Amino acid sequence: MKTAVKNMGVFYGVGVGPGDPELMTLKALTVLKAAQVIAVPRSSEPRSEGSSQALAIVKKALDLGDKDVLDLVFPMVKDKDALRRARELAASRVVERLKSGLDVAFITLGDPMLYSTFGYLAPIVKDRAPGAAVRVVPGITSFSAAASAVATPLAEASEKIIILPAAYDITEIEENLKRPFDTVVLMKVNRIFDRLLDLLCSMGLEDKAFFVARVGWPEEEIVTDLKGLRGRDLDYFSTVIVKKGARE
Amino acid sequence: MKTAVKNMGVFYGVGVGPGDPELMTLKALTVLKAAQVIAVPRSSEPRSEGSSQALAIVKKALDLGDKDVLDLVFPMVKDKDALRRARELAASRVVERLKSGLDVAFITLGDPMLYSTFGYLAPIVKDRAPGAAVRVVPGITSFSAAASAVATPLAEASEKIIILPAAYDITEIEENLKRPFDTVVLMKVNRIFDRLLDLLCSMGLEDKAFFVARVGWPEEEIVTDLKGLRGRDLDYFSTVIVKKGARE
Repeated sequence: MKTAVKNMGVFYGVGVGPGDPELMTLKALTVLKAAQVIAVPRSSEPRSEGSSQALAIVKKALDLGDKDVLDLVFPMVKDKDALRRARELAASRVVERLKSGLDVAFITLGDPMLYSTFGYLAPIVKDRAPGAAVRVVPGITSFSAAASAVATPLAEASEKIIILPAAYDITEIEENLKRPFDTVVLMKVNRIFDRLLDLLCSMGLEDKAFFVARVGWPEEEIVTDLKGLRGRDLDYFSTVIVKKGARE
Repeated sequence: MKTAVKNMGVFYGVGVGPGDPELMTLKALTVLKAAQVIAVPRSSEPRSEGSSQALAIVKKALDLGDKDVLDLVFPMVKDKDALRRARELAASRVVERLKSGLDVAFITLGDPMLYSTFGYLAPIVKDRAPGAAVRVVPGITSFSAAASAVATPLAEASEKIIILPAAYDITEIEENLKRPFDTVVLMKVNRIFDRLLDLLCSMGLEDKAFFVARVGWPEEEIVTDLKGLRGRDLDYFSTVIVKKGARE
């Protein structure tokens, strides 16, 4: 073969934080500036707007110029075969570029190690391109930014935290609110909010919780009186943080 | 009075991340560049090196020039009166500068809303200087950076997380490892590590855990075979993350 074997590119998972481009890290910016390919997860479910939000954040902080923006579709479906096929297709498109010597930066809202598609994709890419290095740049999480926005600590001293990623099952939420933990972070509460409010009221916790949606975006909403939200059509990125205070 | 009443300064809590200065956010850098006063928490306990580490990170990213570096001592003692006095003294020194119209940026390792002295200090400052605005810049947490360093997701999909700030009580750790949570983050495991290792072995979890100390510092240590750490004198900033895998 006359063509030289190119060095394999690096596959980066880059957290871009929850919304405010200023909450990107210096490292995220450095990696995104240098990478030839920006991989963007997109979903096909209309309610989930996570698909292009990471890209919207990056574009506010950085001129993408002539970078290759690689759209990777991860349908929000429960069909395991469809999910597997989507992930394998995405991985093969990433691997193709890595094998051409291009660095690929997969951007993700928040943190790539916390509820991100990157967690599924990276092992498949490593499997198909064992020579490629995988590097991860952590990002600010939505609940950290939410606590900062209200200047209310998530936890202090010996306080313990529970993080529940998706609040769909009210019984499970109740069970977890009853555990001897000081702080309970409930992500994606939009579908179940009114029932959650009933539960918090029944437990006397309605004044020990706050609601944050789309933190760092122009449409950011911070609400400390949860009752005012009853009946509202809430954003997909709605978080409730319950600070129970004294330990049980 | 002939002297004009000055505008009150802003009191910032600024997370500088766990170690690597590149993990500071763009906003942290902007705030620190603009603030006239950098408030630095220092402890008096020799083993806790948290005292000036935040400052070490900032100095790698930023020339402090002629900024006023305000050392605030928070002794690591259990005496509540001593703690209260230290916090009140620190608050009064901050308030003095805010009332002079100076912005004060209190720097903190990791995130100001997560196990930071800022959480204690801000309410006292607000109480004494009601006109001063308090703003918080979130930071990358040590456990996010730890997960990124090993490229192992903290949690995916519907996985649930427990965060325990200080692993002093092995019975409590055991209780929490038995709960139906997928990931358990154990911070500051240095004092109890050997007993934790015994516990993990007895629960068959020793291969589902990883150890990270001083992530992002030159002395960073990442260990996936925990048994090799037995008997070692470990750093104060040692974290063990247990990924139990399948939910119970």
